[in-house]
Amino acid sequence: MTFKPADPNFAERVRDSFSRQAFMRYLDASLTIIEPGYCEIRMPYRPELTQQHGFFHAGTTAAIVDSACGYASFGLMPADASVLTVEYKVNLLAPGRGEVMVARGHVIRNGRTLKICRGQAFGVTNGAETLCVESLSTIMTLAGREDR
Amino acid sequence: MTFKPADPNFAERVRDSFSRQAFMRYLDASLTIIEPGYCEIRMPYRPELTQQHGFFHAGTTAAIVDSACGYASFGLMPADASVLTVEYKVNLLAPGRGEVMVARGHVIRNGRTLKICRGQAFGVTNGAETLCVESLSTIMTLAGREDR
Amino acid sequence: MTFKPADPNFAERVRDSFSRQAFMRYLDASLTIIEPGYCEIRMPYRPELTQQHGFFHAGTTAAIVDSACGYASFGLMPADASVLTVEYKVNLLAPGRGEVMVARGHVIRNGRTLKICRGQAFGVTNGAETLCVESLSTIMTLAGREDR
Amino acid sequence: MTFKPADPNFAERVRDSFSRQAFMRYLDASLTIIEPGYCEIRMPYRPELTQQHGFFHAGTTAAIVDSACGYASFGLMPADASVLTVEYKVNLLAPGRGEVMVARGHVIRNGRTLKICRGQAFGVTNGAETLCVESLSTIMTLAGREDR
Repeated sequence: MTFKPADPNFAERVRDSFSRQAFMRYLDASLTIIEPGYCEIRMPYRPELTQQHGFFHAGTTAAIVDSACGYASFGLMPADASVLTVEYKVNLLAPGRGEVMVARGHVIRNGRTLKICRGQAFGVTNGAETLCVESLSTIMTLAGREDR
Repeated sequence: MTFKPADPNFAERVRDSFSRQAFMRYLDASLTIIEPGYCEIRMPYRPELTQQHGFFHAGTTAAIVDSACGYASFGLMPADASVLTVEYKVNLLAPGRGEVMVARGHVIRNGRTLKICRGQAFGVTNGAETLCVESLSTIMTLAGREDR
Repeated sequence: MTFKPADPNFAERVRDSFSRQAFMRYLDASLTIIEPGYCEIRMPYRPELTQQHGFFHAGTTAAIVDSACGYASFGLMPADASVLTVEYKVNLLAPGRGEVMVARGHVIRNGRTLKICRGQAFGVTNGAETLCVESLSTIMTLAGREDR
Repeated sequence: MTFKPADPNFAERVRDSFSRQAFMRYLDASLTIIEPGYCEIRMPYRPELTQQHGFFHAGTTAAIVDSACGYASFGLMPADASVLTVEYKVNLLAPGRGEVMVARGHVIRNGRTLKICRGQAFGVTNGAETLCVESLSTIMTLAGREDR
């Protein structure tokens, strides 16, 4: 799908909002790609992010998948809107193995009030990606409430 | 619902597994109650855990709700089993405001292979609780694979 | 939770809309209770509604759970609004056994644009109810678009 | 993804099970394609299948999406297994407009006990397809319990 962003400065607006999410910084997550209706976030492995078997904790992976979907959506919103995740579902398909976890969010329905996204997260080991999480989420535009 | 745990030492086993989740420690989350089919986890507010408006990031809240549901389920499993979250859905009902976020997981169906849980998270402000997250999840027993 | 309906004639409006859902009639489903934020729908057993083992097909049960949640929400909306299910998740907890399947929808968050509902369906055998389906759903108010 | 079916007669086994679902017949739904890890089901428009605005009722569409995912999974199971939908989430992306509704289920993770599926349903009008439903579901293999 191709989307035309409502705001020509969408990428800057998204990066600015992401940089204000203290929790993304605490996870050491970086926003690596932002395009209309698409966002990628990467999070390097650290022992602090693990569950009891030493893999990425599902909570860390789900958090960056949610952020990737939220920012994929936010990029399509008008400049004076905020973004709100209404709900999401994640299926955990494989243990969170890898040197990096990469999350990708895709808008699959670009409604005015609600945007629906498909998200995925892949564990990366020696450049090879394994699908760890598949998600489906609903994101809301809060019109007239600038994010700053 | 009342459940009879398969393992009399379930509480110790749950607390031991929780203590090995580095990410729960990184969130400064504590397991405060464990009963058969029920688990409570608390996470005090810290600026590191916030989104762009200064509230608990949904990723932190969803992570402790998932853990509460996972450990509510794990407590009902035999001593030689591991626990795996298959999937969960969260609805974010209110911003994550509060001095503490408390997550509660309840097993609503105690199948041998799959346990189904309802989870909730409440932001606590001056002792008053506001429902922030409602979840529904599927947790799997991995028989014969001890968690340690 | 107690809710104050925006429209005093909410019950009549709900029953009228339900009666225009041809598929509910095709399932022989009846709307048996409508209260602010709550709705109950009943569907008697018929061989046409079954899956390959002779139980209620999950598709029939999920359909009345969705309707119960939709109408629990619709009853809280202004008189000039329509209702739209945005999404739902169902967990199927037990086979759809029983003489009647009863679905109950409860609004758990009454937002202006979005209402969040918990739904359940119970198979009824000799008056005893077994929980078959648990759901969590998001329902949208379409303001200014009367349902008729 | 390509999958190797455990049972060479998987297509016959799937078609046979589908033909015993009275509710699919009641919807006048046909199983049109079955391949390893993939299933397509079609349902022609009929007034009996509609909601209050004359479109396919979401309950009918969700039912065939669930069936398509269930049978995509069932086709990958051993000959002596039964299939059970554990849970699914659907997002309703557009009204159920069309002469035919076509549902497609794809296995995205082929675990021994659990299979995870992506489902979609499209309303077909003059040969053009509109995405109406997107789903994500968890399907269970019941080993050693033949479906017949």
